[in-house]
Amino acid sequence: MKLPRKVKLVEVGPRDGLQNEKQFVSTAVKVELINRLSAAGFPNVEAASFVSPKWVPQMADGSDVMQAIHRRRGTIYSALTPNMKGLEAALAARVDEVVIFGAASEAFSRKNINCSIAESMERFRPVARAAKDAGLRVRGALSCAFGCPYQGDVPVASVVSVAQMFDELGCDEIDIADTIGVGTAAQVGTVFDAVTRVIDGSRLSGHFHDTYGQALANILAALETGITIFHASVAGLGGCPYAKGATGNVATEDVLYLLDGLGIETGVDLAAVVAAGDFISTALDRPNGSRAGKALLAKAAA
Amino acid sequence: MKLPRKVKLVEVGPRDGLQNEKQFVSTAVKVELINRLSAAGFPNVEAASFVSPKWVPQMADGSDVMQAIHRRRGTIYSALTPNMKGLEAALAARVDEVVIFGAASEAFSRKNINCSIAESMERFRPVARAAKDAGLRVRGALSCAFGCPYQGDVPVASVVSVAQMFDELGCDEIDIADTIGVGTAAQVGTVFDAVTRVIDGSRLSGHFHDTYGQALANILAALETGITIFHASVAGLGGCPYAKGATGNVATEDVLYLLDGLGIETGVDLAAVVAAGDFISTALDRPNGSRAGKALLAKAAA
Repeated sequence: MKLPRKVKLVEVGPRDGLQNEKQFVSTAVKVELINRLSAAGFPNVEAASFVSPKWVPQMADGSDVMQAIHRRRGTIYSALTPNMKGLEAALAARVDEVVIFGAASEAFSRKNINCSIAESMERFRPVARAAKDAGLRVRGALSCAFGCPYQGDVPVASVVSVAQMFDELGCDEIDIADTIGVGTAAQVGTVFDAVTRVIDGSRLSGHFHDTYGQALANILAALETGITIFHASVAGLGGCPYAKGATGNVATEDVLYLLDGLGIETGVDLAAVVAAGDFISTALDRPNGSRAGKALLAKAAA
Repeated sequence: MKLPRKVKLVEVGPRDGLQNEKQFVSTAVKVELINRLSAAGFPNVEAASFVSPKWVPQMADGSDVMQAIHRRRGTIYSALTPNMKGLEAALAARVDEVVIFGAASEAFSRKNINCSIAESMERFRPVARAAKDAGLRVRGALSCAFGCPYQGDVPVASVVSVAQMFDELGCDEIDIADTIGVGTAAQVGTVFDAVTRVIDGSRLSGHFHDTYGQALANILAALETGITIFHASVAGLGGCPYAKGATGNVATEDVLYLLDGLGIETGVDLAAVVAAGDFISTALDRPNGSRAGKALLAKAAA
């Protein structure tokens, strides 16, 4: 097995996770969660979303959150910015990186953001340009790269093509996301091999969901193709909106347990992440969605 | 990724799974579960345990279960036999394969079966011999191959040595088990590489627990070392006795989803396994422990 020596782990729980939890989470709890994750050593925390509170009420307090958190040197704080208004708010909140998004599936693009893939990219063009002009990093989140809840199969050529569009918009990093968690390890190899033919693998991240229990096997497969950036959500925050009661984002604790076991350096402290997962699960009164987290908490309590 | 074309999937839910569930399961439910699993196409179902009902009351009805099930041609029915008395009961019940067991950890052996590893092997010698004389297959279950709840680390040399003892006792198949689910993918490579140096890999199986969420990544790593036999438990039956509330056996549905996705032939029908997992979870009024199972059931209900 040929594996990278270092991995950048991006913690998406405070944004991608909490946005998909049913309950609204108070600003104070969000701030405490982000501070704990920063202290655990993450090089990148997805912290806020500057979208219309009409569409995503869970994230309405993005500016307050960014204002209140303790900024750790060495951590990049990212925020979703769907349009110029969002970008302005993100700039005012002094985020380090903005996230724009698009799907590899036409059906998903139309259902989710009500326009074609090509149109969505044109809408993001001024956002990406203004962000770059302001000196921010830009990340492109490419959803449905392994399957779509509406159209089913997604051609690998679409993934490659949308990745190229993000590249052309100036994205520093492109997230290849299995939004509904249907991909398996061989497909991970196929998709990443295809995308790395046109974009350097060091700029690609793997964003896997554990809906079918495949996330860690997929991460292992991606590591073997040379991918070195992965997204994960503490305590597995964020359910799956396409299968009620099913799991969404892979739990950070499980990913970190794997990476630690493989001897891959992340700079993130597992015990601190487990404690953060326990904090947020308790605060939300929800079951902890991390298997490693639960096992380590049970062991500590024994 | 170099992967095998075919895998033998051993369903251990009715024995290893139910034995570790808190509640007693009626004979009728056990029989229905085994019949459903046989019909789903498993080449091997672990169906009973002929141990003292004083120690394992959950399995006291082994003879009745074996008597009542429908025997599918092509399915091997296995039972645990800790001693000659158990073997006699297994022979009377006409099982196809008996399972003897031993740990790679001295501390676990002493705590669990109250004798050293070497002594445990000597105790099993007459059982294995009598089983072979009666024309049965014999399987050796090697626990704590990746770590021990009592001593922590387990030397690879101990795993190799116990595997050789099982080989010497005449075992047809030897299960390399991560009893507490602590192993990660690199370790899987190390352990299987070491054991296959002394025993042909075609006779080794991987028995993984999902306690730390690592099971599918570990199975992928084992597949890459050429292992072609894996154990799994429908609906993830069987908790982890060493970490309260944590997960034990990897869920069969998740493993099968992986293997199907990799294009690896098993002869087992995923939809039938998902239905069996739903049946037993409902019968026991417990949450379904399979992520793929839950996702597919949610999708079907939508």
